[in-house]
Amino acid sequence: MTSAILKVSCQDRRGIIAAVSGFISDRGGNIITLDEFVERNSNTFFMRVEWDIHNFSIEREHIAAAVDGLAAEGGFGGKWEIFFSDIKPQMAVFVSKYDHCLWDLLLRHQAGELRCDIPVIISNHEDLRPAAEFFGIPYRVVPKTAGNKSQAERREFEILESYRIDFVVMARYMQVLSEDFLSRYQNRVINIHHSFLPAFEGARPYHQAFERGVKIIGATAHFATVNLDKGPIIHQATLPISHQDTVDDLITKGRDIEKRVLSDGVKLYIAHRVFVHGNRTIIL
Amino acid sequence: MTSAILKVSCQDRRGIIAAVSGFISDRGGNIITLDEFVERNSNTFFMRVEWDIHNFSIEREHIAAAVDGLAAEGGFGGKWEIFFSDIKPQMAVFVSKYDHCLWDLLLRHQAGELRCDIPVIISNHEDLRPAAEFFGIPYRVVPKTAGNKSQAERREFEILESYRIDFVVMARYMQVLSEDFLSRYQNRVINIHHSFLPAFEGARPYHQAFERGVKIIGATAHFATVNLDKGPIIHQATLPISHQDTVDDLITKGRDIEKRVLSDGVKLYIAHRVFVHGNRTIIL
Amino acid sequence: MTSAILKVSCQDRRGIIAAVSGFISDRGGNIITLDEFVERNSNTFFMRVEWDIHNFSIEREHIAAAVDGLAAEGGFGGKWEIFFSDIKPQMAVFVSKYDHCLWDLLLRHQAGELRCDIPVIISNHEDLRPAAEFFGIPYRVVPKTAGNKSQAERREFEILESYRIDFVVMARYMQVLSEDFLSRYQNRVINIHHSFLPAFEGARPYHQAFERGVKIIGATAHFATVNLDKGPIIHQATLPISHQDTVDDLITKGRDIEKRVLSDGVKLYIAHRVFVHGNRTIIL
Amino acid sequence: MTSAILKVSCQDRRGIIAAVSGFISDRGGNIITLDEFVERNSNTFFMRVEWDIHNFSIEREHIAAAVDGLAAEGGFGGKWEIFFSDIKPQMAVFVSKYDHCLWDLLLRHQAGELRCDIPVIISNHEDLRPAAEFFGIPYRVVPKTAGNKSQAERREFEILESYRIDFVVMARYMQVLSEDFLSRYQNRVINIHHSFLPAFEGARPYHQAFERGVKIIGATAHFATVNLDKGPIIHQATLPISHQDTVDDLITKGRDIEKRVLSDGVKLYIAHRVFVHGNRTIIL
Repeated sequence: MTSAILKVSCQDRRGIIAAVSGFISDRGGNIITLDEFVERNSNTFFMRVEWDIHNFSIEREHIAAAVDGLAAEGGFGGKWEIFFSDIKPQMAVFVSKYDHCLWDLLLRHQAGELRCDIPVIISNHEDLRPAAEFFGIPYRVVPKTAGNKSQAERREFEILESYRIDFVVMARYMQVLSEDFLSRYQNRVINIHHSFLPAFEGARPYHQAFERGVKIIGATAHFATVNLDKGPIIHQATLPISHQDTVDDLITKGRDIEKRVLSDGVKLYIAHRVFVHGNRTIIL
Repeated sequence: MTSAILKVSCQDRRGIIAAVSGFISDRGGNIITLDEFVERNSNTFFMRVEWDIHNFSIEREHIAAAVDGLAAEGGFGGKWEIFFSDIKPQMAVFVSKYDHCLWDLLLRHQAGELRCDIPVIISNHEDLRPAAEFFGIPYRVVPKTAGNKSQAERREFEILESYRIDFVVMARYMQVLSEDFLSRYQNRVINIHHSFLPAFEGARPYHQAFERGVKIIGATAHFATVNLDKGPIIHQATLPISHQDTVDDLITKGRDIEKRVLSDGVKLYIAHRVFVHGNRTIIL
Repeated sequence: MTSAILKVSCQDRRGIIAAVSGFISDRGGNIITLDEFVERNSNTFFMRVEWDIHNFSIEREHIAAAVDGLAAEGGFGGKWEIFFSDIKPQMAVFVSKYDHCLWDLLLRHQAGELRCDIPVIISNHEDLRPAAEFFGIPYRVVPKTAGNKSQAERREFEILESYRIDFVVMARYMQVLSEDFLSRYQNRVINIHHSFLPAFEGARPYHQAFERGVKIIGATAHFATVNLDKGPIIHQATLPISHQDTVDDLITKGRDIEKRVLSDGVKLYIAHRVFVHGNRTIIL
Repeated sequence: MTSAILKVSCQDRRGIIAAVSGFISDRGGNIITLDEFVERNSNTFFMRVEWDIHNFSIEREHIAAAVDGLAAEGGFGGKWEIFFSDIKPQMAVFVSKYDHCLWDLLLRHQAGELRCDIPVIISNHEDLRPAAEFFGIPYRVVPKTAGNKSQAERREFEILESYRIDFVVMARYMQVLSEDFLSRYQNRVINIHHSFLPAFEGARPYHQAFERGVKIIGATAHFATVNLDKGPIIHQATLPISHQDTVDDLITKGRDIEKRVLSDGVKLYIAHRVFVHGNRTIIL
């Protein structure tokens, strides 16, 4: 079964659901799921609707134009995107030396949990090449130094473009991406931070957590923005710790939750369920 | 704001969402939330849609008839219910001697968490009268013995009818209701069982759990049916235990989860989110 | 069964467990539980040992003196406390207008979960008197204004002393206690903060959480110190939220976790399991 | 640092902790952790004590004999075991075709989380050889048919013995081990069952869970016994599901919890924290 997924966000007004669902069923589409949400403070309407296009009377290449007409008419002009279930998003993974998030993504991908392609892995170090090779994924090393950042990013852009990458996952990648990079891939760079943000922003959050004597640790998947660790949060989780846990124990326990939170965040993104609204996300 | 809530369950077919959402918006209604689900094995469609009726062009007392017409026309004939947000469900609580679930319900009700009325509490014992009186709720004692069951239930029916009760919550009520009772209130009697069903059906589940040496305990809110502890499950949760916990510890810890699971189940029911489908529930 | 509970914290050295357990068994005591922990950074030893004193050859009133001798000899001089299981700690509850934490404490106390006495409830408002009266607990109102703080606290001290209060629980008490108050009751005032500290210190944490767009909320039981929301953390927990939750929803959901975290923290304190070590706690 | 770990289980009597801790400290040992528990129904005492043997006056090869003397004298005759932290348990992994638990074990082992050796992986299928080879671990295939079971097990024994295997982990191994096998490795075969036992014993637990309409799924790590799925439970956990989850979704979500529960159970076993007591476990 191939389905189309339409994401809409616009000023709320009466009749959008009826217009869209009528558009779909009138043309022979059968709605599989429809989720919507109205953010009351800003009166913004969000909808994700997925329908079976098997008997849809509009051919696939004309659906976008038809939705464009509907949008103009139906009053949700401009703010929509359409995806097809058989076109997998192209994901690039950025890594440094920590391997747990990378393995988690690759194994879930191999198990069929992540409906995307992973055409390339980019790293500033050689270390994780064996994992990439095990799965037959190209591994490209772009070293980074204090001095070569913009050059290195130019190299990264070339790689990303050559693989037609749609979005980037920083799987414990230990470099800060530039404003230029992040603006090119706005809301398309997913990072994992190893604390329950906004607690323990910045470096060495497990050390900070230990110092503060908290009884929980956590992880946060968020879109990377120029304001480090302050981007829209996609997913978070925590787990209990105790006084018995050293910083090393926190790092070990944290790996478990980092990788799960990151993979869960990636799954939501791939399923076209994540809407960014100011500094928050709506997950439909 | 007053809203109407329409629950539909029927054989799946194309166009139901469009028909219903069109019906609503064409008549000036603004959809607040729409949730749907198709159960693939039986190809059954479930929908819960809630809309603001402030500017709805059909008067409240005629909405049901209009939906009836729509259902006939739209092909979801018969299997629908309509509710209005300003008409609170009338809930009767059945209790025996354990008070924790009762207190939890009453305190949440007082805090505005449970959007229902609690016109009466029925018990087979005097013990919990003070709690009822604290909140000014009539407390009716209907003693039960091996011999007087059908008489006692007749008395209970009179009470339930006199208060126009919509549904019954067994808040650790230690009597089995008859087939007659349960058929009159089919899918309208919510019970809490103190285990993660189907484990530890029957009596003394914490003792059973201790004997088996499990590392978790749990609670299950379900609709009561004649097959004891086998009714459709509404909500479940668990919590970790250890070898250090005695049966008494399990009972103590269990109270916490029993009351939460029951109140959460009741909230879902009151919000008209629970659909029964065979022996399972769909929660929209 | 009556037991003695000895808490020891001192510089770590070899032989402390042997000295203490030998002291107990040589005099006919049977150890019920023994928990210890060595904090490696500071090389500090912590132990909590509880023993049945039924056949203990030292009379109860002389046990402290005997432990004193043992401590001098055994090298854990001075840093120890002894408690007896049949002498219940005297807990005062401070409240304002929010009632959920108060009800939770009172109902758990009534159910036998909290092994302490609650001889008095102190409030700056009249509102929660009915709950206190339901359980027959004196309710004393000490109003607070910007101008009368030190006078009011003097009044509170009189009340606390007249009831021989051992420790204070701030059950969503909406006033800041003075440095003077907190130094008199150092590490004996337990507060509940409605966030997963150190995130969202200060006022209106649920509003802060909503603004930041987090996907979890939490609560923190900690000892109150002059550095507001920065005292040693006793217990924390979190629960998942979503974009659908308004600030009011967060407040509602938060009540559930606030009361549980506070009651769990109080239970640990009452069981003499909490050691303060710098700004952290050790829970044995 | 090298430490000795002594596990004791015996009839409870006064003075065991004192005798053991005195034995240790008198000979220059420094206790790192001491955990004990008394099971009240059977009056059984359990203790795990770990001490630094750096300055211990008894040489390593004579410690067992010394403990033997102490046990005879101290009244815990016979029921003890001693381990040294620098002698890693030898773990064999049995697998079939599901790879998630195997990967989890191998990656945690590589990350240093599992303090054991994995000298061999045994399977009835070729499928998972690449994973074994990636980590350089011998992979031995012992096919099993209805007819060759005892022969195949004889082959497995030879392999296990040739690698001096201490314990076996069934990482979703799809064959039932014989009574003979299990009696040779009593309480040394850890299995993962993909339900929260005792619910859904036997085959296809996720299908059973779906049919019953539960709102949680779980996993159970337990010692394998001849009574299938009824052995002593080491660890369990659950996670919430909904009506939206198909059987395939349960299988996918279940993988996450199966592998975590199994690895956590293995960690407890490797740390010599698991005591079997009848059909239950004590975890110290």
